[in-house]
Amino acid sequence: MTDPVAANAERAQRLRELHVPGDPLVLVNVWDVASARTVAGVPGCQALASASWSIAAAHGFADGEQIPLELMLAAVERIAAAVELPLSADLESGFGSGPAEVAETVARAIAAGAVGANLEDGPRSPADHAAVVAAVRERAGREGVPFVINARSDEYLLGERRLERAIESGRQYADAGADCIFVPGITDLAEIERLVDALELPVNVLGSPAMPSLGELAAAGVGRVSFGPGPLGVASAALAQAAGELLDGGEYPQELGHRPPAG
Amino acid sequence: MTDPVAANAERAQRLRELHVPGDPLVLVNVWDVASARTVAGVPGCQALASASWSIAAAHGFADGEQIPLELMLAAVERIAAAVELPLSADLESGFGSGPAEVAETVARAIAAGAVGANLEDGPRSPADHAAVVAAVRERAGREGVPFVINARSDEYLLGERRLERAIESGRQYADAGADCIFVPGITDLAEIERLVDALELPVNVLGSPAMPSLGELAAAGVGRVSFGPGPLGVASAALAQAAGELLDGGEYPQELGHRPPAG
Repeated sequence: MTDPVAANAERAQRLRELHVPGDPLVLVNVWDVASARTVAGVPGCQALASASWSIAAAHGFADGEQIPLELMLAAVERIAAAVELPLSADLESGFGSGPAEVAETVARAIAAGAVGANLEDGPRSPADHAAVVAAVRERAGREGVPFVINARSDEYLLGERRLERAIESGRQYADAGADCIFVPGITDLAEIERLVDALELPVNVLGSPAMPSLGELAAAGVGRVSFGPGPLGVASAALAQAAGELLDGGEYPQELGHRPPAG
Repeated sequence: MTDPVAANAERAQRLRELHVPGDPLVLVNVWDVASARTVAGVPGCQALASASWSIAAAHGFADGEQIPLELMLAAVERIAAAVELPLSADLESGFGSGPAEVAETVARAIAAGAVGANLEDGPRSPADHAAVVAAVRERAGREGVPFVINARSDEYLLGERRLERAIESGRQYADAGADCIFVPGITDLAEIERLVDALELPVNVLGSPAMPSLGELAAAGVGRVSFGPGPLGVASAALAQAAGELLDGGEYPQELGHRPPAG
């Protein structure tokens, strides 16, 4: 029998190595086992990431840690158990007020099978969030997993969209032990290039139709592209379209015969 | 404050009245709150139904009561809490070996907010399943909800596809107190017409690209059309398509910007 800690340590290492600036890790975010198996079954998929927004919506909650942590972690655990690929969990601000509580959340996520996590600064000051990152780094080490910490600056989502502040936050999170810096909401290619150039760590940006193309992001040196709630949007749009057709007495979509991959 | 039992009784009555032979209730099956809100938000949607296959797949289980009943009912409860429309729950064979146990399952589903259910005969004899239906009818009455019992004959899925047997089962379930007879797997329009003509109750068939059109089913006098795992298939096919495009470095699908309706 494989030692589960060793297996997760190997997965964490694999996830880390997939962050290649200039050849970014593309993560199509998932929210349940069916979506996870669907994305994992696509040729070229090497890792998975959950989206907190989507897991919350699937359970009837708004984003922002409204969903009980138990439900969020149960979803993460089911996904990790169903799919062999490394899984990064979106843990929002860490479901805790400070370093000790967030470290405990991460320990529980590791026990659930996650080998990396998004941790957003949200309402925290950069110094406070750096302390959270440091505590998570230390705790993950004790758990025996080289956990991939994707530290997120919300300067573009919640702040004043000032590049120099996102850079300064990113540097603090890097010094505290982060592996990747996520700046959702940044959309200008020149700003993305400056962000990448200013940071030592791989940079994660949020892909969307409003963003430079994946090729442009790669050329800018981005190391990771993810999509947040976007993949649930894709699935929901298709469902809405099919439901509209069927409720109007229209044709059967051929995709009614599709099934997500079985376990 | 509205009495929840009275509110559910009203919803059950509304669901029952939507079963109009010749103008069938079309139910685009859902599996979580996001899919439920998506389908409920489509113009013309008047009721919802869960799909056990899809709820199981979302949690990483095969169909066939592999998923713990607690998880199945928790999903039903979240959907019922999120959406105002009547909700019919797919309860497979009722998660119980006989009438008393299935009646208890249905009481729990009523407490979770369901106002109707699919109950399949599966491995039971028609006489045994009729006894289950009768017990559910009695128990739902005691719970104060005119619960809509959709009794399912698996003659076409698991048996020998003999129409006369499906008709005979349907008559027994009708006599025991069912409200609708569901025969998934029947596809021949002439057989569907004979089934409808032979039964007093509304008939439910499973819509798919292999079936007569919705217009033909209506003309045949069908009272309810549902899609089982098909809607999850639609969502998953779109997700797989988008993931393939993104993992190949392609274009951003515009639907990345779509969101399911909020609560």
